[in-house]
Amino acid sequence: MSRIYRIDGLQYANWSDRIFREMRSGGLDAVHATIAYHENFQETIVNIAKWNQLFEHYSNLIMHGKTADDIRIAQKTNRTAIIFGLQNPSPIEDDIGLVEIVHALGVRFMQLSYNNQSLLATGCYEEEDSGITRMGHEVIREMNRVGLVVDMSHSGDRSTLEAIEISSRPIAITHANPSWWHPTLRSKSDTVIKALTQSGGMLGFSLYPHHLKDGSACTISSFCAMIVDAVERYGVDNLGIGSDLCQDQPDSVLHWMRNGCWTKETDYGEGSDSDIGFPDQPEWFQDNRDFNNIAGGLEDAGLPVDDIAAIMGGNWLGFYDKSFGPITK
Amino acid sequence: MSRIYRIDGLQYANWSDRIFREMRSGGLDAVHATIAYHENFQETIVNIAKWNQLFEHYSNLIMHGKTADDIRIAQKTNRTAIIFGLQNPSPIEDDIGLVEIVHALGVRFMQLSYNNQSLLATGCYEEEDSGITRMGHEVIREMNRVGLVVDMSHSGDRSTLEAIEISSRPIAITHANPSWWHPTLRSKSDTVIKALTQSGGMLGFSLYPHHLKDGSACTISSFCAMIVDAVERYGVDNLGIGSDLCQDQPDSVLHWMRNGCWTKETDYGEGSDSDIGFPDQPEWFQDNRDFNNIAGGLEDAGLPVDDIAAIMGGNWLGFYDKSFGPITK
Repeated sequence: MSRIYRIDGLQYANWSDRIFREMRSGGLDAVHATIAYHENFQETIVNIAKWNQLFEHYSNLIMHGKTADDIRIAQKTNRTAIIFGLQNPSPIEDDIGLVEIVHALGVRFMQLSYNNQSLLATGCYEEEDSGITRMGHEVIREMNRVGLVVDMSHSGDRSTLEAIEISSRPIAITHANPSWWHPTLRSKSDTVIKALTQSGGMLGFSLYPHHLKDGSACTISSFCAMIVDAVERYGVDNLGIGSDLCQDQPDSVLHWMRNGCWTKETDYGEGSDSDIGFPDQPEWFQDNRDFNNIAGGLEDAGLPVDDIAAIMGGNWLGFYDKSFGPITK
Repeated sequence: MSRIYRIDGLQYANWSDRIFREMRSGGLDAVHATIAYHENFQETIVNIAKWNQLFEHYSNLIMHGKTADDIRIAQKTNRTAIIFGLQNPSPIEDDIGLVEIVHALGVRFMQLSYNNQSLLATGCYEEEDSGITRMGHEVIREMNRVGLVVDMSHSGDRSTLEAIEISSRPIAITHANPSWWHPTLRSKSDTVIKALTQSGGMLGFSLYPHHLKDGSACTISSFCAMIVDAVERYGVDNLGIGSDLCQDQPDSVLHWMRNGCWTKETDYGEGSDSDIGFPDQPEWFQDNRDFNNIAGGLEDAGLPVDDIAAIMGGNWLGFYDKSFGPITK
C-alpha cells in the first residue's frame, strides 16, 4: 500500500514553536509557506535568513522542503517540510536573473501578481486585465526552465488563462475556491478551473473565511460538498487544499497585505471599513490540528478513501514531483 | 520686451565638460536630463549624488534647476539649468512615499512607464494597454500634490489618455513626434496630442532619428514643416522641443535602455538585429550647438518670431512655472 501524505498548499502564519507542533498534530508532511508579499529582493533574503534560523532551532519539528523527496524524508522523520513561496513577484524586482537566484535559495512558487497590476500580470482587483506582459512572457519561460511554479491565486482571469497557455509546465492556483460556490473577485471561474486542471495544474481549496460561502459561519458539510462537486466537474487528480491559514497574525499584517506601500488611502480588500480585521476562522478549522476535521468531513460527504488521500496531499506531492526541478528532456 | 528662453525637454547624454560647454554654445538655459531608466531607488540616489558632484565641479556651466525661477537665474548667470527626470517609475519601486522623496531631491518629471508595463501604466510596446492601474491612480494624485510632472512619452495611447483625464494638472509628453508625420509605436496619435494640448499639457518634438521621418536622412525643412503643421493643428502654446539627444553614449547603453534586466533575449526596440546601435543624428542636429539650426529652420519655415521663441523654450518655461511646486489654492 502506498503511503498517505497530508500537504497544505498555502499558509502565512505568525510562525512559532506552537504552530509547528500543531502542524505535527494535524499530520502535515508539508506546508507551502508564503515568505514574501510586498518585499523586494533584499527584504526577502532577510525573511529567508529568519526561516533558516527556524529550521536550525526547530529541527525536530520542521525542515526546509526543496524537492518532493524532501517531503518523503519529512514524513519518515516525523517533521513538516516547509516549502517557500512568494505571493508577488516583487522579490525578483525587474531582474529576470533573480528567478534562478530565488529558486537556488529554495523558493518553489511565485505568484505573477498580488491583487494589483505587477510587471508580469494583472491582479484580480484591477478593473482591466491586459494579460501577461512582455516581461511576464520572459519570466514564465525562465520559471519553467528552473522549476519555479507559476501561481495565479491573486491574478485576474485573463492573465491566468494566458499563463496556463504560455507556461510549458502545469501551473497552480494554490489557494482559491470556485466562483460557482462563492462568487467573489478572488474566486475562480469554471472556465479558469477547467483550463487549469485540464493542463495538469493544481487548485488548492481555501479555508480563509472571505473565500467561504457564508464566511466564518460556513459549515464543514458545505465546504466538503463543494469539493465533492468539484471532483465531479474536474476529476480528482488536480485538486488539493490550500488553506490560506494566517494564524496568530495581528490585524496590522492584514492591513499591510492589502495596502503594502502602494496607496496612501486604505484599501479594505475583501473586507470593508466596518470589517477591517482578520475574519474568524470557522469553528471546525481553527488551526493546523483541524486538518483531521477536513479529512473526516470529506469521508462524511461520501468521497472514496483514495480520493480523500489524493486531495489531502497525494495530488500536491505528485505535482511537486514534476514541478520543482529543471525540465528533464 | 520679454526675455527669450531656450529649453530642451529631454536629453540623456554621457555628460561631460564638453557637452556642458556645447549647451552654452547652443544657448540652452535649461535641459531636462534623464537620471534613471531602469534604476531602483538606491541606484537613483547614486546617480543624483553623481549629478551633485557635476554641479559642484562645473558650477560655471551648469546648475541644478528645481523651479522655473532657477532657469531665470541660470540665464542671468550664463549657465544651463539641469532638471531631473525619470523615464520609468522604477525609482519609486512600489512605495508611494518615494514620490515626495524624489521630488525633494529635485526630480521634476516621471514617466509612468517605459516601453513595457509598469506598476502604474502600460508601455507603448506592450500588445495590450489596460490603462492606469490601481497604484497608478494613487501615484498620479500624489505627483499632482507635490508637483512632479507626469510624462507619458513611452506609454501606450490608452494609458496616456487616462493619465490626462485622471491628472488634476497638465501632463507632458517630453519627447515624441506625431504619428501623422512618422507612424511608429513611439509616435503619438492626433487624438492623444489633441487631448494633451487641450488640457494644457506639453509636447516636446524629438530629434532622435528613429522618431524622424526618413530617420537619419530627415531634412531640417521636413522637421520644421512638421512643427508648422502642428502649430496649425494644436496652436502654438503647448509645443516645445524634447530632443532626446543621447550624445556620446556607447551602444551598450542603448542595449541596456531597451533590455534593462527584464529579458534574457535581446529586444531591439526601434532598431533591428541588423541595426542595433544608436542611429546617426541628422547632420543638422549633431549636438547641443545645433539648437541654433532649429531656430533658423523654423524661421525659414515661415514661423513668426514669437512662435519660434515659444517653441524653443518659452512654452516649457511657462509650463515649469505652473508645474514644479505644490498645488496652490
